[in-house]
Amino acid sequence: METKAQVLYDFTAEPGNNELSVREGETITLTNQNVGGGWIEAKNSRGEVGLVPEDYIEIKQAQPFTSGGNAASLDLSLFDSHIPAPASTAQVDVAQPETPVTPVTPGFSPTSHDETSNGNDPWAVFDNNASGGVSNNWAAQPEGTETGKTSSNAWHSGGHVHPQAYQGAGAEDDEWDEEWDDVKSSGGYAESEAGEGGAINRGGAHGSSMKIALNKFPGFSKSGPELYLLSKQPAKGTKLPVYGGEVGPVWAYPDYQLDCVVADPKKGSKMYGLKSYIEYQVTPTTTNKPVNHRYKHFDWLYERLLDKFGSAIPIPCLPDKQVTGRFEEEFIKMRMERLQGWMSRMCRHPVISSSEVFQLFLSYKDEKDWKTGKRKAEKDETVGVMIFSTIEPEGLPDLDLTEVEQKCEQFNRFTRAMDDGVKDLLTVGNEHWKRCTGPLPKEYQRIGKAFQNLSSVFTSSGYEGEAALTDALTAAGKTYEDIAQMVAEQPKKDLHFLMETNNEYKGLLGCFPDTIGVHKAAIEKVKEGDKLVATGKITTSEKTAMSKRASTMSYALQAEMNHFHSNRIYDYNRVMQQYLEQQVKFYEMIAEKLRNAHSQFTTM
Amino acid sequence: METKAQVLYDFTAEPGNNELSVREGETITLTNQNVGGGWIEAKNSRGEVGLVPEDYIEIKQAQPFTSGGNAASLDLSLFDSHIPAPASTAQVDVAQPETPVTPVTPGFSPTSHDETSNGNDPWAVFDNNASGGVSNNWAAQPEGTETGKTSSNAWHSGGHVHPQAYQGAGAEDDEWDEEWDDVKSSGGYAESEAGEGGAINRGGAHGSSMKIALNKFPGFSKSGPELYLLSKQPAKGTKLPVYGGEVGPVWAYPDYQLDCVVADPKKGSKMYGLKSYIEYQVTPTTTNKPVNHRYKHFDWLYERLLDKFGSAIPIPCLPDKQVTGRFEEEFIKMRMERLQGWMSRMCRHPVISSSEVFQLFLSYKDEKDWKTGKRKAEKDETVGVMIFSTIEPEGLPDLDLTEVEQKCEQFNRFTRAMDDGVKDLLTVGNEHWKRCTGPLPKEYQRIGKAFQNLSSVFTSSGYEGEAALTDALTAAGKTYEDIAQMVAEQPKKDLHFLMETNNEYKGLLGCFPDTIGVHKAAIEKVKEGDKLVATGKITTSEKTAMSKRASTMSYALQAEMNHFHSNRIYDYNRVMQQYLEQQVKFYEMIAEKLRNAHSQFTTM
Repeated sequence: METKAQVLYDFTAEPGNNELSVREGETITLTNQNVGGGWIEAKNSRGEVGLVPEDYIEIKQAQPFTSGGNAASLDLSLFDSHIPAPASTAQVDVAQPETPVTPVTPGFSPTSHDETSNGNDPWAVFDNNASGGVSNNWAAQPEGTETGKTSSNAWHSGGHVHPQAYQGAGAEDDEWDEEWDDVKSSGGYAESEAGEGGAINRGGAHGSSMKIALNKFPGFSKSGPELYLLSKQPAKGTKLPVYGGEVGPVWAYPDYQLDCVVADPKKGSKMYGLKSYIEYQVTPTTTNKPVNHRYKHFDWLYERLLDKFGSAIPIPCLPDKQVTGRFEEEFIKMRMERLQGWMSRMCRHPVISSSEVFQLFLSYKDEKDWKTGKRKAEKDETVGVMIFSTIEPEGLPDLDLTEVEQKCEQFNRFTRAMDDGVKDLLTVGNEHWKRCTGPLPKEYQRIGKAFQNLSSVFTSSGYEGEAALTDALTAAGKTYEDIAQMVAEQPKKDLHFLMETNNEYKGLLGCFPDTIGVHKAAIEKVKEGDKLVATGKITTSEKTAMSKRASTMSYALQAEMNHFHSNRIYDYNRVMQQYLEQQVKFYEMIAEKLRNAHSQFTTM
Repeated sequence: METKAQVLYDFTAEPGNNELSVREGETITLTNQNVGGGWIEAKNSRGEVGLVPEDYIEIKQAQPFTSGGNAASLDLSLFDSHIPAPASTAQVDVAQPETPVTPVTPGFSPTSHDETSNGNDPWAVFDNNASGGVSNNWAAQPEGTETGKTSSNAWHSGGHVHPQAYQGAGAEDDEWDEEWDDVKSSGGYAESEAGEGGAINRGGAHGSSMKIALNKFPGFSKSGPELYLLSKQPAKGTKLPVYGGEVGPVWAYPDYQLDCVVADPKKGSKMYGLKSYIEYQVTPTTTNKPVNHRYKHFDWLYERLLDKFGSAIPIPCLPDKQVTGRFEEEFIKMRMERLQGWMSRMCRHPVISSSEVFQLFLSYKDEKDWKTGKRKAEKDETVGVMIFSTIEPEGLPDLDLTEVEQKCEQFNRFTRAMDDGVKDLLTVGNEHWKRCTGPLPKEYQRIGKAFQNLSSVFTSSGYEGEAALTDALTAAGKTYEDIAQMVAEQPKKDLHFLMETNNEYKGLLGCFPDTIGVHKAAIEKVKEGDKLVATGKITTSEKTAMSKRASTMSYALQAEMNHFHSNRIYDYNRVMQQYLEQQVKFYEMIAEKLRNAHSQFTTM
C-alpha cells in the first residue's frame, strides 16, 4: 500500500543532489523510506521523484495522539506571538509520526535553525520593549506562586507532556525509548535524521533559541523571574558560590578540569532488528570508566541541564539541530564529533560539570543506578529561575540596580555583536569551502591537463631530443593535478575546525537572548518595586529582597560571562593556531611540489 | 558639427568598462574621438554613451578614394571564398578614414584575429581538397608566366596599391608617412589603435593567417608554386644553403646569434603637434648602435619579409593584431614588449636575420641609407615562391615525392595539433587569469575582513587579557588581505609570460597552413606531371625539373621545421621554468606570511 505524506515546510532541492523541491501543504507519495541520512524518496503530483528531508514531511497515518498533537498546538497558540510559527508547528508534527507516547520534545524542529539564520533574530525579543509586556503580565499575575515544583510545571506549559512522560512507568519508558531510538527502519524518528532537516550550508545551523524559548516563555512572560525574586522558601540543592576573581566575579572552578571522550559508536538493535539505534561510548577523564549512551540520553541530559541551569547559564543545543553528512556513516561520525564538542564544553563548565545530573550521566554504575538517578533528576525542584536561589556571592558587595543594568546591557551588546561576527565568518567560510571544493580544483586540473596535452603533442613531433622537455612538461601537468586534489581536500583539514568552532559559538550565542532576557525581566521587576509597594502588591522587605536578589543574579551573569570570555579566548586562540598551521603546511606543500616540477626542466 | 560613424562589426561591451555594445550597420554619433588606446566615445540612437573600438567603426566623411576602396573590395571578391568577409571588408574600410593616399594595407583588420579565434580555422583550407581547386585553376593558367617581377605583381593583386605607393616619389612618401603615423589627434589611423580592435580576451589574438592569405592567395590560387617549379630564369639573390644536420636538414646557422633590444619609446610629433607618432629605439647586439623606427617601419619590414620569405618561412604577424592595453601608455608598453618578442624571433632565424632587408632595418647608417635600402628591398624580385630558387640543398640526395609528401603531412599534423594545444592552454590560462584577478582575491579579502571584524568585537568585550588574541586575530586578518593582493598581482608575474609565449606561438602556428599550403600545392602539381606532359602542357625535362624542385622545397620545409622545433623546445623550457619558479616564490611567500601570522598567537 503506498504511503502518502504531507509536506510541512517548503524545501528547495539542491541541483545535482537528486533532491525534490516541495511546498508546504503539498501531498507527496513516499517511494523509498529507507534512503538513510534523514532523507526519504518521494514522488510529487507531477510524478517527479527525488529526495526530501524526512523532517519536512508528515506521514499520513492514523495517529492515536493526533488530538493530543492539536492540544499541544493550542497550548502553543497561547505563547507570545514572536515564537517562530513553523518551528512550533514542527514541534507538534514532529512528535506525531508513529511515536504515540513520545513526549513533545520542544525545538525538535528541522527548520528552527533555518528560521533563525533566515533572519528570525532571537535578539529581536528585546527590541520591542519587554518591560511593557512583563508589567502587563504582572497585573494578571496571581500573588505568590508557590513552590519550585509549580514553577517547574509552569515552566513546562509549552511542552508539559514532557515531565509526565519521563515520570511514567519504567515499561512505558522503555517502550518509547525504542521507538525514539528507531533508526531508519520506518518513517519514524531516527538517529540519523533528526540532525538532517535537509540543511545544506554547513555552519548555517542555529538550533538553540527556539528550544529555550519554548521552555522559558511561559515562565518568562507569566511567572518569570519574580518567582525567584519573591520566593519565600529556603533554597534547595547545592550552593553555587561566586567569588571575586582578577577578572571580576567568577564561578568556583574545580582544581581538576573534567573532560570526556565520546567514541566508538555502535549500532545496536532490538525486537529482532526491527528497531535499531546508535550507542556511543562516553569515557570521563576522571574515572576513565566508559559508559554507554544513546542519542536520546544526551537529549535527556540536555533537557535536564536546560531546565535546571537554562536561565543562568546558556545551554547550547545538541548538535543534531545542525548540519551533518548526507549519508548515515558520515552523519554518525559528524554527530559524534559534535557530541564530543558539546560534552567537552559542558565538562569545562564548573557549575554544570559538578552538577549531580551531569555526574550521573558520566559515571553511573549500572542500569539501576542510571534509572534511579534519572527519576531523581526529573524530580529536581530547583529548576528555572529558582537556580538563582542557590547562588551565593562570596564576600561581594550588593550591586545597585544601575550597575546590574549596565552589566546586563554590556553583555547583551557584546553577545549580539559577536553573534553577527560569527555568522559573518561562517558565511565567508562557507563560500570559501564551496570554492575550494568546486571551481578552484577544477581549474588547476584543467591547467594540469593542458600542460600534459601539450607535452603529448610535443612527443609526436618526431624531433630528436624532445624527451627532456616533454617529461618535465608532463610532470608539471601532473603536479597541477595533484595541487587540484590538495586544494579540494584542504578545507577538511583546516577550514572544518574553524567552521565547527564558530558553529558551536553560534549555537551558544543563540542562547544568550533568552538567558539575558531573564535578567532584563528581573531588572524591570525591581524597577517597579516602589509602584508595587505603593499598590500593596509587595511589602517593603520583599522589595529590598528583590533588589538584593537582582544583585545576586547579576553576579551569576557576570561569572557566566567571564567564564564565556575565558573559554572564548582559549577556543579562538586554539582554532586560529590550528587553522593557520594547516594553511602554512598546505602552501608549503604546494611550493614543494612545484619546486620538484621546476627542477625537472633542464636549464639551457 | 557632430561626426557620425557607421558600425562595421558587432561589438559587445564588457560590463564595467564603460563600453557600448554596437551592431554592424548601426549608425552612431562620436562624442569624443580623443579617448586614446584605440577607443572612441560614441552615442547610439537610444542616447546611450560609451567606448567603442575605433577599428569597429567607419567615420562618415567624403572620401576621395572611396571608389578606390570599392575597387579593392572588387579585387577581394576574386579571392577564394574562405577568406573571412568581415576581415576583408575591414581591410578596405580601414584604409578610408582621412588617409586618402594610404595604401591598402592587407590584413590591417581589427577583427581578423577574432575571426580566426571564433573558429574560422585557417587549417580548414586543406580540409576541402585544395588539390582539386589548384588543378582547376591550373587549366585556366596561361602558360609559363614570365619573370619574378610579374610574379611579384601577380603576388600582390590583393593589395596591389601597395608597392606602387612605396615606389612613389619621396615627397609623397613622407606625405603619407605622417598621415599614417598620426596618433589620436583625429579619427584617422594611429599608433595606438591599430593594435586594439577592442579585443578583450588576452591571448585570444591570432592575426597571422588573414594577412598571409591576402598576400598569398592570388599567387597561390592562380600562378602559385608552379611559378617556381617551372621557372626558367636563373635564381637571383643570395643563396640559401640547407645542410644535413644531426636532426635532419637544417639552415646554415651563423656563428654569432644576432639579437636586438627594442626600447625607449618616444612620442614624436610634427606639423605643430597636429600629428604625432611613437618612435622605438632598436639596438642590435652586433653593432650596438641604436636606430629609431616607428611602428610603420616595423610593418614595412614585416611586409617585405612576408613577400620575400612567406611561402618558405612562416612570418608571424606584428603584435598589433593582438590584444593590448586599454590605455595608451599600457598599450605602448605592451606593444613594445611584443615588438621585442617579434624582433628577437626574427633575429633568431638564420635566413631572416642574415637577409639584406633585415640588416638594413637593424643597422642603416642614415636617413638616406634607409631610403635607398627601402627602395631596393621593394624592388626585390626574388619574392613569393621564387625564394625556393635560392635554396640549395648541400650534399643532400633528391627526395622522391612520397618522402616529400610524408614530411609535409607530418608537419601539417603536428602544427595543427600544437595549434589546438596552444589554444587550449591559452583558454585555460585566460580563465585562471580572470579568477586570480577577480573572485579569488575578493574572497581572501572577505576572510581577512571577517577575522579583523571578529577581533574588534572581541576588543569590545571589556574582558581583561584580551589583547594578545585580538592583536593576533587582527594580524591574521591583515595577512589574508595581503594574500588577496598577492593573488591578484601574481598573474602579471608568471601567467603573463606563459600567455605571451603561447600567444606568440599561436600567431606563428597560424602561418603554417599557408606555408604548408604552398608545399601541398607544389606536390599536387608534381603529381600531375605525367598528365601535363601527356596533354603537352609541359615537357619531360620540365617535369623532371619540377620534382627536383619539389625536393628542394621539401628540404627548405624540413630545415624550417627543425628550426621551429629547436626554438620551441628552447622557448617552452624557458617559459615553464620561469612560470614554475614564480609560482614557487608565490606559494612560499604566502606560507611565510601565514607563518608570521601564526606565530603571533600565544600558545596556551
